[in-house]
Amino acid sequence: MIRNKSAAVVGGDMRQFSVYEQLLSQNNDTVLCAFEKCPLLGRHVSFPVCRDALYPADIVILPLPAFINGALNAPFSDEIISPEALLRVIPKSARLFGGRLGDDFIKTAEVRGFTVYDYISREEFAVMNAVPTAEGALAAAIANTDITIAGSRILVCGYGRIGKALSRRLHLLGARVSVSARKPEDLSWIAANGMKALKTGELYYCELDFDIIINTVPHMIFDKKLISHVKNGCVMIDLASVPGGIDLAAANSMGIKAIHALSLPGKTAPASAGRIILSTIENMLDETEMIRENE
Amino acid sequence: MIRNKSAAVVGGDMRQFSVYEQLLSQNNDTVLCAFEKCPLLGRHVSFPVCRDALYPADIVILPLPAFINGALNAPFSDEIISPEALLRVIPKSARLFGGRLGDDFIKTAEVRGFTVYDYISREEFAVMNAVPTAEGALAAAIANTDITIAGSRILVCGYGRIGKALSRRLHLLGARVSVSARKPEDLSWIAANGMKALKTGELYYCELDFDIIINTVPHMIFDKKLISHVKNGCVMIDLASVPGGIDLAAANSMGIKAIHALSLPGKTAPASAGRIILSTIENMLDETEMIRENE
Amino acid sequence: MIRNKSAAVVGGDMRQFSVYEQLLSQNNDTVLCAFEKCPLLGRHVSFPVCRDALYPADIVILPLPAFINGALNAPFSDEIISPEALLRVIPKSARLFGGRLGDDFIKTAEVRGFTVYDYISREEFAVMNAVPTAEGALAAAIANTDITIAGSRILVCGYGRIGKALSRRLHLLGARVSVSARKPEDLSWIAANGMKALKTGELYYCELDFDIIINTVPHMIFDKKLISHVKNGCVMIDLASVPGGIDLAAANSMGIKAIHALSLPGKTAPASAGRIILSTIENMLDETEMIRENE
Amino acid sequence: MIRNKSAAVVGGDMRQFSVYEQLLSQNNDTVLCAFEKCPLLGRHVSFPVCRDALYPADIVILPLPAFINGALNAPFSDEIISPEALLRVIPKSARLFGGRLGDDFIKTAEVRGFTVYDYISREEFAVMNAVPTAEGALAAAIANTDITIAGSRILVCGYGRIGKALSRRLHLLGARVSVSARKPEDLSWIAANGMKALKTGELYYCELDFDIIINTVPHMIFDKKLISHVKNGCVMIDLASVPGGIDLAAANSMGIKAIHALSLPGKTAPASAGRIILSTIENMLDETEMIRENE
Repeated sequence: MIRNKSAAVVGGDMRQFSVYEQLLSQNNDTVLCAFEKCPLLGRHVSFPVCRDALYPADIVILPLPAFINGALNAPFSDEIISPEALLRVIPKSARLFGGRLGDDFIKTAEVRGFTVYDYISREEFAVMNAVPTAEGALAAAIANTDITIAGSRILVCGYGRIGKALSRRLHLLGARVSVSARKPEDLSWIAANGMKALKTGELYYCELDFDIIINTVPHMIFDKKLISHVKNGCVMIDLASVPGGIDLAAANSMGIKAIHALSLPGKTAPASAGRIILSTIENMLDETEMIRENE
Repeated sequence: MIRNKSAAVVGGDMRQFSVYEQLLSQNNDTVLCAFEKCPLLGRHVSFPVCRDALYPADIVILPLPAFINGALNAPFSDEIISPEALLRVIPKSARLFGGRLGDDFIKTAEVRGFTVYDYISREEFAVMNAVPTAEGALAAAIANTDITIAGSRILVCGYGRIGKALSRRLHLLGARVSVSARKPEDLSWIAANGMKALKTGELYYCELDFDIIINTVPHMIFDKKLISHVKNGCVMIDLASVPGGIDLAAANSMGIKAIHALSLPGKTAPASAGRIILSTIENMLDETEMIRENE
Repeated sequence: MIRNKSAAVVGGDMRQFSVYEQLLSQNNDTVLCAFEKCPLLGRHVSFPVCRDALYPADIVILPLPAFINGALNAPFSDEIISPEALLRVIPKSARLFGGRLGDDFIKTAEVRGFTVYDYISREEFAVMNAVPTAEGALAAAIANTDITIAGSRILVCGYGRIGKALSRRLHLLGARVSVSARKPEDLSWIAANGMKALKTGELYYCELDFDIIINTVPHMIFDKKLISHVKNGCVMIDLASVPGGIDLAAANSMGIKAIHALSLPGKTAPASAGRIILSTIENMLDETEMIRENE
Repeated sequence: MIRNKSAAVVGGDMRQFSVYEQLLSQNNDTVLCAFEKCPLLGRHVSFPVCRDALYPADIVILPLPAFINGALNAPFSDEIISPEALLRVIPKSARLFGGRLGDDFIKTAEVRGFTVYDYISREEFAVMNAVPTAEGALAAAIANTDITIAGSRILVCGYGRIGKALSRRLHLLGARVSVSARKPEDLSWIAANGMKALKTGELYYCELDFDIIINTVPHMIFDKKLISHVKNGCVMIDLASVPGGIDLAAANSMGIKAIHALSLPGKTAPASAGRIILSTIENMLDETEMIRENE
């Protein structure tokens, strides 16, 4: 829990609003910036991104991703703020948090004396986010197919964090789940957890008679050739970031329904996603303070 | 499996189309009627509802519900066909199946010599349908809340078929599930299955600090008074048929998000729902034949 | 919770000791009788079964079963007490609880003015006991086979309370579970819960290639003829009360390992079994008091 | 699958017998050595460990552990065979497999020209063995406590392979599971999987009100000081190899029931454990052959 800090939550979507609400409920002195068009503002006030609003913040929290097209990611605001302009109004004494800040921004900020933290690289952030991602994928699978999860044959491609969290859920809901992976250790775990293990590199030689295929691997797996082996009527869902692991155009041209489901935590569970962000920031603050105490 | 029958599938939505496709794949001589506007017809042909198309069907399958506003339920057709008109073109030798046919129609049909079967009253139909309903409710809960199912506090009201199938899924997905029921036996099963059991009649005296409340009981449970006890920010989902068990207007007027989610099998899994219908019809045919053989 | 009562716990095994300990911890004035040889008595005292010890008990609790071979079931005592002798020393004002008291005893006791309650017939008692029974059966299956539950093919015969609780656990632990039942409704639930449904009456025509078969049905299912179809190496476990549903002698003579696992709650979880007994008694007391208040 | 090989299975317990039976069923020419006292030999023959029996084996499989007290581990034989004697009778052309062979033996054997493989160090062997270990621990927990797993509060110490496999099962069976770990990533996964995460290093400051504590960490965690915090009546089970992570003597002297459960796969599921051994050997053979082909 963060206590007795001045905090500024700047830009972003409902995840940032959730971060703001939590900080308030923990009795921190908190301002919200670049949120003036949010329909759920209620009694809360959005400030413009300026020195007066941000001063004297101990903590400044930027959204995930922090920037889109070279400006602050602020869908609920008409303000267009460059990274440069942002650094001009943030107090130097503040700790600056954000997601996917970019090497250039981090470098520039550090050169100017800012203490910068990117939570996107934190392992616990990725693990915790696997839960809303898996639930969003589950809802997408229910909504985009004309069959039930129970009893259907599903392939999850990849056994990283999202593959683990998702395959477990599909298995518990009664699907007949296969999971493909590369590492022998992962293949053993897949089998030990009661699912069928396939080698990702050998998918081409497997019978791909699945009702649903969900990809979590962030590079091209399902190219035209592999998709041509997929059963007619199969629905394909790609969870990997752009460019993803399924050639969607090829799939659709072959009459296979294929969709790209991205940024699921922010879409299906913004409040939980906001909690995950703040919890990661808390861990990062704790560690910094522990390091200071030890010095 | 149904074999060597002439079948006519008449009206309805994608569930009926799934029934039609299955009958075809089982090598039955099957016609589809009143489906001409279905965008997924593909190479299939829809016939008008007339004596020529229906003759010589051994089995005629009407949709669920069979009739809406006094005419055949046929959302993919411009034809408007009264029950009366329907009986005039169906061969008397055919067995006539349908869902929620209505006492009047059944009586009229039987008086005229038809053999009529309503699958809505079959226990196995209701049990099997609980699965797509539970999955649809799950997807609705994921889509309509800003938190994850995992870790959230959920009340399922009622431990009938849908309550059982739904609470099991929510529990397996990591929610902290309470279930309310009336029968002591049900309360014991809820606890034995690892969930918290509440007496439906005593909900008013419980602390209702739930993130999500899902009602499955087909009469008014959550009236204005009970809703006033519900935690701010809770999302309420009513799965019970109209008029349902949640006073939605009262909820919304108190700032509680409340929605009515109906006919989930047909919406979220029409192909599975079609399989459930045909499987129930098969059971009914088997039993009739067994009775005949024994006579 | 029972409060401000005088209670006497008379005879029985560690389940009764658990009942006694709970009553004490609820601040009731409680005596323990016919337990003098129990190695876990510790600082507690066992009284002989006599008028002085039982007077002035409001509640007298006999064990499950109450009587064995015509005398009080008291494995931790050298006293041999007939039902007749027991009735002579129990105060008439007490409520008399016990398990499987027998029609003769109940009749005699009621004629003499006692208020008698048998908890064995209570639905919630049976449901709650299904949990320790299922866990005991699980431990027996692990201990008596040379394979893991995960991945093994298991048939559970019967889908009553124990069949439900047990098959669910085996399924969650990764076994490939089939369940046989008679009622169409049960068969639908078995499938809806992700297991394979078989008709008990048609087992003879199924391929019985199971690694483990567990019977819960209290009449002969696996006779010589059916056992002759069982796969070599299969282990059979009968959970049904004597005479049970598996012809153990026939199985063993055919080289099939077959065991009878009885009274599992008292053996594998006596403390939990004691809690279930007391919780059922509490329910029965509550109902009696509610009836009184309404009169 | 291994095919067209001559194999010799030498010494060991029922796991080795299972390896032998599988090799036979795969149509390999297989001999069994040092098994003459096994009561389940049946129609099979055990040969003495001599050049005649082992010649011309392509594969020789020693048990796990291969040696005990400086001699071949052969509980079903009266032969006492030193590693030295063994190497004298094994053909040099054979591939020599075994579990926990020891650095000295491996060095000696390689110097003399043997090709030696120890399967104990294989990741997939460890992962697959976590399943029978977890099931054995589960059975031990059921058998050694007087309560049900369902509803009990259990601490699993360690989230390695066994901790993962075991905590998952306890959680699915309805226990309220806490898991302690050191790595932040593991703590996140524990929470993401619906259990309570504790830091192993901070257990001393937690309230240890558990009904069951199961240790999987192979160094001392529960010393006298930590055990003194454990709730009265708790049952402690140590799964870690000698010397283990629980001071059993200290526990017992404080009146806490504490047991050491070791070598569970061989005890509770020797046939599955044998399958795991052979499957690992197959993987090692496959890799060797692939390397050869690529050379």
